Amino acid sequence: MNPVITSRNNERIKEIARLNEASFRNEKGLFLIEGAHLLEMALAHGVVQTVVSLEKIPHLPETIEQILVSEDVLKKISNQKTPQGIVSVCRQLTPSKEFGSRILFLDDVADPGNVGTLIRTAVAFSYTDVLLTEKCASIYNDKVIGASQGGIFSVNLAKGTAKTLETLRNEGYAIVVTSLKASVPLQELPKLEKFVLVLGNEARGVSREVEKEATHRIIIPMSNIDSLNVAVAGGILMHHLSGK
Amino acid sequence: MNPVITSRNNERIKEIARLNEASFRNEKGLFLIEGAHLLEMALAHGVVQTVVSLEKIPHLPETIEQILVSEDVLKKISNQKTPQGIVSVCRQLTPSKEFGSRILFLDDVADPGNVGTLIRTAVAFSYTDVLLTEKCASIYNDKVIGASQGGIFSVNLAKGTAKTLETLRNEGYAIVVTSLKASVPLQELPKLEKFVLVLGNEARGVSREVEKEATHRIIIPMSNIDSLNVAVAGGILMHHLSGK
Repeated sequence: MNPVITSRNNERIKEIARLNEASFRNEKGLFLIEGAHLLEMALAHGVVQTVVSLEKIPHLPETIEQILVSEDVLKKISNQKTPQGIVSVCRQLTPSKEFGSRILFLDDVADPGNVGTLIRTAVAFSYTDVLLTEKCASIYNDKVIGASQGGIFSVNLAKGTAKTLETLRNEGYAIVVTSLKASVPLQELPKLEKFVLVLGNEARGVSREVEKEATHRIIIPMSNIDSLNVAVAGGILMHHLSGK
Repeated sequence: MNPVITSRNNERIKEIARLNEASFRNEKGLFLIEGAHLLEMALAHGVVQTVVSLEKIPHLPETIEQILVSEDVLKKISNQKTPQGIVSVCRQLTPSKEFGSRILFLDDVADPGNVGTLIRTAVAFSYTDVLLTEKCASIYNDKVIGASQGGIFSVNLAKGTAKTLETLRNEGYAIVVTSLKASVPLQELPKLEKFVLVLGNEARGVSREVEKEATHRIIIPMSNIDSLNVAVAGGILMHHLSGK
């Protein structure tokens, strides 16, 4: 084991810290996670490359690089006000092109907290896949990972476009879109076997090209306010569609 | 109209900026809101004392103090990265002790985003009152106000304790608590006319003294993950209990 790194200018540390930048993260095909709980999930998933920590982590597979650092150095790598003592470098997840019967589609959902919370909820209600358009918050953003509570490791996460929806529709999936136009109340939706639930951007809602692919347009009946937060609306819809 | 204030050291500006501190806010019985949309709601509610802005706001009632400032001074007062050009000082809201038939009770919900989102959702589903325990995020926190989307002006917000629940139970309210102990699935809950929905702290859930007051213990059936985010769980429960 190498000695404890105490310099913020150590080249390896500088490289790891740069993984907080989205462009560098994607160039390298890596991302960072914080804390013991997420490390455990990432280990189970076999994606851990390097563990940076204040203290030696016991029982790590030998193939995983382990780096001990001082608190000051950990702060340089960590995105949190109070770092949890462990930051791990993981290989980015491999999306599957085989989708299950219950898909969540996020159309430009921009807020990282919302994207993470929606992934967490999708896992809770046994969704098989979450498809995200290009303009969604990145699944490797630390706030997405945090809000997902490790959910990013428990569901297939893949890119999605209006074209993907067209393909799925042709394969017999119902495409359920929340919309104010020609919508039926959630409760009148028939039971669906294979479906994609589409949620839109916080300010603009679902884009026109995505809405075009809808087979069912629904609305959550409510009063007094324009709309719900997208993660809350998503929760209500996912719960209802899960038929529990 | 007074001239534009350009000094961050102006005494009145310093006093207004201090309203970002919870203790000073409560001592003065005031709070801050940002932007034109919230100002409009606060005006309709008759609680605006002072408007600080980059440009003159037309048609303000004469009883309201108006202060013009430079961008730099507005930044000192604002809590936002990109201030919206208007910060208003409002008088704190007067809670009503007369409750309606549909009450949300937040037991130490600590995250301001969660508290704000729950208030927003309560308004959407026509809840009459939101009761908050002492340790909840303050309703005058800027993140609560932002996430509530102005909902703080549309529902009665009052303090709540386990004692309050006991009183309400004695008055015939059903007290619905999410709990893992002896719980029935949400769907088996009978239709309730007068109820209090209780949501607990993000990490610890509902406290023991609050749970003691429960008349109905329910659970949202789910798989694969320990729990939902409290704002999402609250959304699913409020939607279900609203019977729509």
